[in-house]
Amino acid sequence: MDGGDDSMQKIAVLTSGGDAPGMNAAVRAAVRRAAYHNVQMHGVYHGYEGLMNGHIEEMSLGSVGDIIHRGGTILYSARSEAFKTEEGQQKAVEQLRNKGIEGLIVIGGDGSFRGAQKLTEKGIPTIGVPGTIDNDIPCTDFTIGFDTALNTIVDAIDKIRDTATSHERTYIIEVMGRDAGDLALWAGLAAGAESIIIPEAEQSMDDILERLHAGQRRGKKHSIIIVAEGVGSATSYAEAITKATGWETRVTVLGHIQRGGSPTAMDRMLASRMGAAAVDLLLEGKRDRMVGIQNNQIVDVDFKEALAKKHRLDLSIYQLARTLSI
Amino acid sequence: MDGGDDSMQKIAVLTSGGDAPGMNAAVRAAVRRAAYHNVQMHGVYHGYEGLMNGHIEEMSLGSVGDIIHRGGTILYSARSEAFKTEEGQQKAVEQLRNKGIEGLIVIGGDGSFRGAQKLTEKGIPTIGVPGTIDNDIPCTDFTIGFDTALNTIVDAIDKIRDTATSHERTYIIEVMGRDAGDLALWAGLAAGAESIIIPEAEQSMDDILERLHAGQRRGKKHSIIIVAEGVGSATSYAEAITKATGWETRVTVLGHIQRGGSPTAMDRMLASRMGAAAVDLLLEGKRDRMVGIQNNQIVDVDFKEALAKKHRLDLSIYQLARTLSI
Amino acid sequence: MDGGDDSMQKIAVLTSGGDAPGMNAAVRAAVRRAAYHNVQMHGVYHGYEGLMNGHIEEMSLGSVGDIIHRGGTILYSARSEAFKTEEGQQKAVEQLRNKGIEGLIVIGGDGSFRGAQKLTEKGIPTIGVPGTIDNDIPCTDFTIGFDTALNTIVDAIDKIRDTATSHERTYIIEVMGRDAGDLALWAGLAAGAESIIIPEAEQSMDDILERLHAGQRRGKKHSIIIVAEGVGSATSYAEAITKATGWETRVTVLGHIQRGGSPTAMDRMLASRMGAAAVDLLLEGKRDRMVGIQNNQIVDVDFKEALAKKHRLDLSIYQLARTLSI
Amino acid sequence: MDGGDDSMQKIAVLTSGGDAPGMNAAVRAAVRRAAYHNVQMHGVYHGYEGLMNGHIEEMSLGSVGDIIHRGGTILYSARSEAFKTEEGQQKAVEQLRNKGIEGLIVIGGDGSFRGAQKLTEKGIPTIGVPGTIDNDIPCTDFTIGFDTALNTIVDAIDKIRDTATSHERTYIIEVMGRDAGDLALWAGLAAGAESIIIPEAEQSMDDILERLHAGQRRGKKHSIIIVAEGVGSATSYAEAITKATGWETRVTVLGHIQRGGSPTAMDRMLASRMGAAAVDLLLEGKRDRMVGIQNNQIVDVDFKEALAKKHRLDLSIYQLARTLSI
Repeated sequence: MDGGDDSMQKIAVLTSGGDAPGMNAAVRAAVRRAAYHNVQMHGVYHGYEGLMNGHIEEMSLGSVGDIIHRGGTILYSARSEAFKTEEGQQKAVEQLRNKGIEGLIVIGGDGSFRGAQKLTEKGIPTIGVPGTIDNDIPCTDFTIGFDTALNTIVDAIDKIRDTATSHERTYIIEVMGRDAGDLALWAGLAAGAESIIIPEAEQSMDDILERLHAGQRRGKKHSIIIVAEGVGSATSYAEAITKATGWETRVTVLGHIQRGGSPTAMDRMLASRMGAAAVDLLLEGKRDRMVGIQNNQIVDVDFKEALAKKHRLDLSIYQLARTLSI
Repeated sequence: MDGGDDSMQKIAVLTSGGDAPGMNAAVRAAVRRAAYHNVQMHGVYHGYEGLMNGHIEEMSLGSVGDIIHRGGTILYSARSEAFKTEEGQQKAVEQLRNKGIEGLIVIGGDGSFRGAQKLTEKGIPTIGVPGTIDNDIPCTDFTIGFDTALNTIVDAIDKIRDTATSHERTYIIEVMGRDAGDLALWAGLAAGAESIIIPEAEQSMDDILERLHAGQRRGKKHSIIIVAEGVGSATSYAEAITKATGWETRVTVLGHIQRGGSPTAMDRMLASRMGAAAVDLLLEGKRDRMVGIQNNQIVDVDFKEALAKKHRLDLSIYQLARTLSI
Repeated sequence: MDGGDDSMQKIAVLTSGGDAPGMNAAVRAAVRRAAYHNVQMHGVYHGYEGLMNGHIEEMSLGSVGDIIHRGGTILYSARSEAFKTEEGQQKAVEQLRNKGIEGLIVIGGDGSFRGAQKLTEKGIPTIGVPGTIDNDIPCTDFTIGFDTALNTIVDAIDKIRDTATSHERTYIIEVMGRDAGDLALWAGLAAGAESIIIPEAEQSMDDILERLHAGQRRGKKHSIIIVAEGVGSATSYAEAITKATGWETRVTVLGHIQRGGSPTAMDRMLASRMGAAAVDLLLEGKRDRMVGIQNNQIVDVDFKEALAKKHRLDLSIYQLARTLSI
Repeated sequence: MDGGDDSMQKIAVLTSGGDAPGMNAAVRAAVRRAAYHNVQMHGVYHGYEGLMNGHIEEMSLGSVGDIIHRGGTILYSARSEAFKTEEGQQKAVEQLRNKGIEGLIVIGGDGSFRGAQKLTEKGIPTIGVPGTIDNDIPCTDFTIGFDTALNTIVDAIDKIRDTATSHERTYIIEVMGRDAGDLALWAGLAAGAESIIIPEAEQSMDDILERLHAGQRRGKKHSIIIVAEGVGSATSYAEAITKATGWETRVTVLGHIQRGGSPTAMDRMLASRMGAAAVDLLLEGKRDRMVGIQNNQIVDVDFKEALAKKHRLDLSIYQLARTLSI
């Protein structure tokens, strides 16, 4: 495919759901790739909410200059209750039809893809690009934003370790991840945390305490425990540990710093490849599909297939983390 | 003073209280400066607790190699209740006497300096070096660790602003500073926060809300509010704002990441200058004094004078911040 | 001064010379401070070159939103030969007169201030704000951009030290600073460099070699030498050292990474204070003056006085660095 | 494999060749994994040079505490001419035999693996772990250190872009990569460079100039060109461009900062998985093999096979970069 396709002349892109570092790089790639194919690209502002309200503007090459390294999304994001209704969806379709826009790229998570499916059903071809820090989308090895959030967390744990080492206390750090423990697990392994508590692996308080005591017997003077928010609050773990051991504990809830920051090289790469691929797919006549990366190659899978599956965390990494943090 | 002084042959250094980035650079400077004067330097581990228990070791030039850029403190820190007693202080003096140590450098905050005063009273000359991220020590323009903590906070706010901009919400960020608003004020100004709430300046909820509404009228779609922990919890401010406006709010409590990290250039400079000066002062026969920096020059002031004063925040900076965040 | 002054209604700001991190924060502060005084602010694009060509636009509050943390300058910078002529300066004055602009803020280095003086002579009141990474402006303790460049250099040296330690070689690092050794000296001290070679202190090759050999005798397995570009090229030092010792050397010329990056908290503070002060001074009727910071307080000094003096490096810091890197 | 294997009781690990961020994480994982299997791990200092000279010490769990985040290698690295001789290799084997060491893990690049092959031939089982920033080892998708170096380069380009944007010049940046263009290509795509010059894709000066001119026609005011060192010096490209266009150019040679720095999360993960796998393989009786990662899974391949192949860069990424930087 080199140099354009005349089946579509106007397409659009939006970002939806929780923002993720790299979304801007994906938007840039989509705009530039469309220009390469001589197709007009439009930006939809404020996600599905803006789509319903016709907040749509043509994007030039220059409009995405100097954004590849910026966190957040220049198209803004929003959650929309109205778009979940038949009426809202109909309104969105009309806005696109009125502007002559023939296809839509949706950058977001699984909720956003469900919205995209509805639009395809109503006659607007859509392609999804997985953008979420949680890495919880099936059929893709990585999502845009995961690597950046991971490094933000690891950097934070490194800082906490400095003070933990100086003070010989137990620190409990809560990271994002409602259903998926990927951020907690990878960050915990990368930062050498003593315990990692994730939804995918049951861990009793007895086991956590046993590991803390074993570390202490080996001479460890401080411990770092990572908790995925989906498992419970860091505070409740801290209280339980203090009650059982009498040790001083300190809690940090990393919060929204995990969503921001300049994207890492990997996230910019991934976003650039996926954003461009989404345009290629639309122009090839594909729809109702999600771009993914599998084995370092860009793939595309049916939304239905992707949304039916459950994202799986690699438990061998969890086992490895346990043997390395002794 | 070039090349040694024979009044003291053995001195020691300890770190005490909350650790601060740059403490290692100060320890390194003290060790190297002592070597330059041909004086033997000892390290006391675990602050006053370790001092009472004789946890003291000679430090070579090599023992402080490759630490200037490390957060935390290689001497560890601790709080000690026992040292607050007459008996504890006596024990500490004996430990120093037994080892022939004639003077002590104490790197820490005002609580640590009160301990140092006690030792001077009992015949051990002491010199204090202000090491705390809070910048709450009188008679010095800056304390070791403040600049690093400030940059850590500003970096965190920058990240949160990325996501705030994308989502158009109000974010409330709680930073350290029990009695002093320096971290909150400087970080708030440097990161362009819409409101800064500090102990030194009363600010009614009405005023906060008025600023939020004024920003909204001018087209601002998100707001960032910084709260010093001494004023109240970020959560309570968030609840009050949501109640009054109906807007979505998000809270981040930065916690212990503010204490860690590789020290900035400024903190390494300050720590190097202060650590070396402390050795010079001890060897010049001074005692019961604190090193400070005033007008970019190293000074020394009487502990009594320093501890009697109250640290003062520059309110003109607070006023400036208010005019710039409109 | 609270709430406006009616002597001037329209003023402008430009950035000139080598760009420095924090220039955007200074522009933002100037725009916001002018709005606070109900004065209209204009931005001049591309420095004096743009001024002559009338590249001037009104700046709104929103035009400086979300720039406080950005490196570079949104007003662009340029060097202009044409502006050095009488004719060029006359053209600039006319452009300002035509637009009704009554005063000008110039953010840049000493060359830029000489241009500002010419404009004042021709009837346009000017105020200078020192923005340059070199810290080579007299009458101010710090210039905007110095702290950021310093941290960029220190971060680079920290990285090189990792590999230096692993490989036991001698690394020579060339940093910016044609006439001023501040960046080299402060970075060298903060990063624990073994030798620092600056224009302000003569250092013979014999002295450099003696220090290298002394380090080796003490067991040091690698050395890092910082050279200010004004003294000579890192490559020539590397060759001389290899020739004299037979040791492997590696050269890094840091180059333009030193000019970029998000400004540090200190640079944002300094820029915010100086940018706002420049507006206040213009409105107070002052002209032909430079804003400075002395003893942490904003001051203003006559251009003539400032440009007649020579920036002085604190040689006691150089002496200190020598005693600490043994 | 859970809980040990009694075929080997003592094994060792060394790092060799150019150091790479993450080597420490790999050493830590090897030591911890050996402890998990109740096998004694030894560290060989200074690579093959130290191996020949018996610079070998037992490593405890504590000896690798607090190193997962450190750049460089605590085992040091070195290049050894002596080890390339039959005599040198024999000496190395004797040192291992004398200490009862039955297997060796070699962390390094292809040159280091050739040395490992020689040892296996002489009866010492070896397993290789690919550690090099260049990503130029066949049979593995990534090498330890690549992701960190990539981010260091991208961060440097981001900084240079700040000043490039302000000044509207052409910047040429030379990055590491003698035979492999991976660093240049990935960094160039991730940082949005206008041109990327790599050994794997011929690019005439005419093509480079045509792209520069096309960018200028579209309104681009500055350009960034990335050159892999294997293709030629940045300086020579700069001179050719200036000669052909008359434009101002600036050159930066990033040099050894690319080898240092705290490893990214990905590099720590990769190093942890590979270091642990190397121990598992040795204990399973495998030898003469290299650990790799393919499709996110740890694999092992014969040294002979790996060294016979040529690393291949994905040229579709090069094509993509060209379409996105228009």
